[in-house]
Amino acid sequence: MSLLASSAPGVEPSADVAPATRRPPLRTAIATVCISGTLEDKLAAAAAAGFDGVEIFEPDLVVSSSSAADVRRRCADLGLSIDLYQPFRDLDSTDPDQFALNLRRADRKFDVMEALGTDLILVCSAVSPTAVDDNAVIADQLHQLADRAQARGLRISYEALAWGTHVNTYDRSWDIVRAADHPALGVCLDSFHILSRGSDPAGIESIPGEKIFFLQLADAPFMNMDVLQWSRHYRLFPEQGTFDLPAFLGHVLTAGYAGPLSLEVFNDVFRQSDPGRAAVDAHRSLLALYESTVGSVPLDRAGAIAASGPGAGSAPGSVPGPDAGPPAGSARQVPAAPELGGFAFAELAVDEDSGPAVAATLRALGFAHTGQHRSKPVQLWTQGQARVLLNAARGLDEHPTGAAVAAIGFETPDPAAAAVRAQAMLAPLLPRRVGAGEADLSAVAAPDETSVFFCRTGAQDAAGWIGDFEPVAGASGPSGPDEVSGPAGAGLGRIDHVALTQPYDRFDEAALFFRTVLGLPIRHSSEIAAPFGLVRNRTAANADGSVRIGMTVSVLRRGGQWRPGVTDPQHVAFATDDIVAVARAAAAAGAPVLPVPANYYDDLDARLALPADRLAVLRELNLLYDRNSDGEFWHFYTAVLGGRVFFEVVQRVGDYQGYGEVNSPVRMAAHRRQRAAVSGSS
Amino acid sequence: MSLLASSAPGVEPSADVAPATRRPPLRTAIATVCISGTLEDKLAAAAAAGFDGVEIFEPDLVVSSSSAADVRRRCADLGLSIDLYQPFRDLDSTDPDQFALNLRRADRKFDVMEALGTDLILVCSAVSPTAVDDNAVIADQLHQLADRAQARGLRISYEALAWGTHVNTYDRSWDIVRAADHPALGVCLDSFHILSRGSDPAGIESIPGEKIFFLQLADAPFMNMDVLQWSRHYRLFPEQGTFDLPAFLGHVLTAGYAGPLSLEVFNDVFRQSDPGRAAVDAHRSLLALYESTVGSVPLDRAGAIAASGPGAGSAPGSVPGPDAGPPAGSARQVPAAPELGGFAFAELAVDEDSGPAVAATLRALGFAHTGQHRSKPVQLWTQGQARVLLNAARGLDEHPTGAAVAAIGFETPDPAAAAVRAQAMLAPLLPRRVGAGEADLSAVAAPDETSVFFCRTGAQDAAGWIGDFEPVAGASGPSGPDEVSGPAGAGLGRIDHVALTQPYDRFDEAALFFRTVLGLPIRHSSEIAAPFGLVRNRTAANADGSVRIGMTVSVLRRGGQWRPGVTDPQHVAFATDDIVAVARAAAAAGAPVLPVPANYYDDLDARLALPADRLAVLRELNLLYDRNSDGEFWHFYTAVLGGRVFFEVVQRVGDYQGYGEVNSPVRMAAHRRQRAAVSGSS
Repeated sequence: MSLLASSAPGVEPSADVAPATRRPPLRTAIATVCISGTLEDKLAAAAAAGFDGVEIFEPDLVVSSSSAADVRRRCADLGLSIDLYQPFRDLDSTDPDQFALNLRRADRKFDVMEALGTDLILVCSAVSPTAVDDNAVIADQLHQLADRAQARGLRISYEALAWGTHVNTYDRSWDIVRAADHPALGVCLDSFHILSRGSDPAGIESIPGEKIFFLQLADAPFMNMDVLQWSRHYRLFPEQGTFDLPAFLGHVLTAGYAGPLSLEVFNDVFRQSDPGRAAVDAHRSLLALYESTVGSVPLDRAGAIAASGPGAGSAPGSVPGPDAGPPAGSARQVPAAPELGGFAFAELAVDEDSGPAVAATLRALGFAHTGQHRSKPVQLWTQGQARVLLNAARGLDEHPTGAAVAAIGFETPDPAAAAVRAQAMLAPLLPRRVGAGEADLSAVAAPDETSVFFCRTGAQDAAGWIGDFEPVAGASGPSGPDEVSGPAGAGLGRIDHVALTQPYDRFDEAALFFRTVLGLPIRHSSEIAAPFGLVRNRTAANADGSVRIGMTVSVLRRGGQWRPGVTDPQHVAFATDDIVAVARAAAAAGAPVLPVPANYYDDLDARLALPADRLAVLRELNLLYDRNSDGEFWHFYTAVLGGRVFFEVVQRVGDYQGYGEVNSPVRMAAHRRQRAAVSGSS
Repeated sequence: MSLLASSAPGVEPSADVAPATRRPPLRTAIATVCISGTLEDKLAAAAAAGFDGVEIFEPDLVVSSSSAADVRRRCADLGLSIDLYQPFRDLDSTDPDQFALNLRRADRKFDVMEALGTDLILVCSAVSPTAVDDNAVIADQLHQLADRAQARGLRISYEALAWGTHVNTYDRSWDIVRAADHPALGVCLDSFHILSRGSDPAGIESIPGEKIFFLQLADAPFMNMDVLQWSRHYRLFPEQGTFDLPAFLGHVLTAGYAGPLSLEVFNDVFRQSDPGRAAVDAHRSLLALYESTVGSVPLDRAGAIAASGPGAGSAPGSVPGPDAGPPAGSARQVPAAPELGGFAFAELAVDEDSGPAVAATLRALGFAHTGQHRSKPVQLWTQGQARVLLNAARGLDEHPTGAAVAAIGFETPDPAAAAVRAQAMLAPLLPRRVGAGEADLSAVAAPDETSVFFCRTGAQDAAGWIGDFEPVAGASGPSGPDEVSGPAGAGLGRIDHVALTQPYDRFDEAALFFRTVLGLPIRHSSEIAAPFGLVRNRTAANADGSVRIGMTVSVLRRGGQWRPGVTDPQHVAFATDDIVAVARAAAAAGAPVLPVPANYYDDLDARLALPADRLAVLRELNLLYDRNSDGEFWHFYTAVLGGRVFFEVVQRVGDYQGYGEVNSPVRMAAHRRQRAAVSGSS
């Protein structure tokens, strides 16, 4: 079947888009300040990620050995427009001599703009000690600047900084621009400056669209701190923070703005990480925001992205070959986020040491080895709807720890549409080797390099992967109408969640990936004071909780010398309706259940005053416990297997949606003790 | 000479100690939450660093497999008292049922305290939704708790959290404790909670000392943010932040407090770094604070520190062998911070590739090879009072980059006293090999492992190191009355500063080290938006600016994959009074002066409107320029030599005290271009 003949839900724009929202052509830009490197590094990364244009951030040009004319040529070669030169600070002044110097400075920057071939400059509201507080005077001084600009074919975009001395709201900046009444002067709107102050963006609709010269977009986490520091260190790409940017962009589009959607994000992490990755993350955020705002993204956008960068054939977002591609100008839309029905499987890469240990642990937890891959050294272990693949064919180079979560399979009714969407959202398909007659699953790489598969377990097509496994003799494996269901075993029914430590620089990228590619928003987050440093947790999940992906990261990257805990832990958690029975059976079967210290139960008693019999059973079975107003959470862990991976068994009671994070320091300290015991040190 | 027979200034308590400040015995303690690891890791680190006691932070005990009785025994073995169990939260409640549960919870914690063998618990002011706002009711509930505690021989220390719902100032907590009027109830004072809110600590003097049951000390940088987040992530050890802790502690001592000085510091970096190092840093901070508050630290404290930890002979702070040690109970004080008169030398470790390149660069900058070490492959290069040692005998293992700053020598009138102080301040002497008849300099390791030498260049004693070098034939080297001065060369007179990249986890430790061991406070700091991520700079300097040590660190540790700049750069800057002449001579002599891009000068023109002839000379000679209201700064850099080290030449005009940091991104981008050119990539 053609990937693009998909009829997945959401291929057409959804009907609930506000009718007032205009749907402009999607043009994207990024300020060079958003990403790391020299100007040359940044331009290459922006082009490769498919951006249409850039804002040149002045300090990036100042340190460059490329002249403005060189940069102009380089951008032309890369297919990038230069949409803005920025920032110009502190124009207005109550001191006439200073104002004259400021105009001289502007003239020199106009020289640079001419050489760059860009006609628009960003002028920020003043923060200097001589900043003007009189709208009429500011308007007059901007008018003088606009006259000079107009004489050279240039334009001025005036922006209110959230911390401007006097001008710090968009409505005041618009009042001044309206008063100046100059054709070469308009406003620049920046979502951070407006939303960080709690201004109501609805008023933007009353600004004539043609007077909105430029739009800068940034998201941010909510932080109760000085707005300048918040702005300079913690901005995020759209859809990564807490601002309602779809509503914001809706107001701007309703006003009639038809320019590029441009990112201006100051973020300490993005500023130091690989600009190639950061630019892809950035572009993905704009596609997601555009979709959230107007309902869908044109599918030919994906092709355009692939074609615009160097190495188009393998660039992020490239779609399958020309025969499968959409016609130019096609009105087809990127399929909506897939509907996920649960985990198809979790795949662990194992080696000859870890493989038997993992298998023994699965067996002790009630799993059975029910299938063997027809052509690869991959075992299928099942229990109810919980499926684990142990793959001895991959992983030693990529996962030198002995065992690692290599892949996750997701159930979805239309795997092909999901794959089209993933590519359009800049997650290229991974190359795979498929044997004759085997399922041909599409897979993409998550930011932590875990493979993400789109599956329809048991289907008689390319997504029905389970047919690639031959039943193991003697095992009561999948067959007949129940073919995708394993033996009941000890009572584990399915995978509850998979938790993966993220590379330090990719935590926000990972959240956006799962939201955009898989339709899994962050539904839970927490920060834990763990024994070896703070740990941040987020969980992306679907609405019914049948798919939950945990992401964890150290708040600060750990030092190199002192790192005694488990490095980059990963785990797979299985759900049960009777954890006491499971734990008892697991203990009887010799599962390596993690011992919980007595102090934990003493504290639990002090805190929660649980009934004595309940406390006794928790204590007996090394069970951990949490409760909140929604319900209860009972869970236990295994030892770490192969240096990095462990299992968890959980039972949710009532509507408890968390993960017992309050108990994770107990687990970390216990794993550390196990490691110390193994290595013989204390 | 005996190190302890020193008569350095400041050996006796300085006379300007406020007479009202009492001088209690110095007892130190640390909350286990301050440092990383399991409880067992933390106790070992605290003991090794010489602390007298600990506060047991409850979550550390809860995750431990050691019972409270085990912990009691362990602490006894380590010589640590358990001074406090903490925290107990949310005691008071408007809900009688909840209050009853809270008393039950306290009883369980009293059980733990009895097993631990500690009699004091910290009770924080409540933050729960049912927190009480009526002082009389809170006093009554605390009285009930104190009755229960007293019956078991325990005591309650009540503390106002800065974010307590109703009780969030120390004076209100004292009002409540006074009203409760119970012998087993007192206040706990925490410097962060008091100073972060801007409360006047002078009122502490009106609290009877015996009702101050405990004192927790923490410093912090000034941050304009939510006080809870500020408290939980950014606290620092005393003398590392901006609080006036000597004044604070003075008020507490004047009130009559005679308990331990205890640290409670929540810091994201300390929480993840090596607890052994962090505990030493922590203990040093208390010694420094005590000295700042009461004028001096008893010298036998140093001996006590060495004796109290395991491996006492080589523990931090150990003093030379028994025959040199002070008598027990000696009233001698730790010598005051040394008076530094300038740099004696900077020593670079070089290898066979980098050595000739560094030597050629020094020669082109006007240095002469004037001395050769009598027994080691070490060259002395001099120019005026600037001295550089090139050491080919050390460094390849420790400094695999090819060249590195291995040591810095400081001029001080009493090197022996400086060495005594360093050891007392927990910087142990480095073992050295000294040849017959050679100078026997004392050296300690800075936090970045650079060796710090105390010198009296040209003296006829163990600190007169320059006599270890034989004059090089033909060189107009040191001789006669000018023996410590090299040839005039190109006009470089001395070392202006040495700048060293710090290990990520040791930035605050480094600042405290230079302040405490060398008497160099931080006099300048800045944060730079550098091409590959934000960089933080601090400079420790003496009052006349003859010694300046730059410390830099990435604001976030960089990722592993994308790190194209120079790794952990270090540089030595030389001062001149005529940088134009020096730059011209250096260019003529073929020095590898770093090229500065034309865009920089265009921007300089736009910003500063310099006279055309001045701009022309800057441009011609690749000079960088900065100015402020104090004066001007002219400087140029060399290429990176040996992968990491470069030189700078600076001229200060007027009273300019900065370092031209505004120009450092230009330098970083230029060094990156040089590296890319060398490696053949773009």
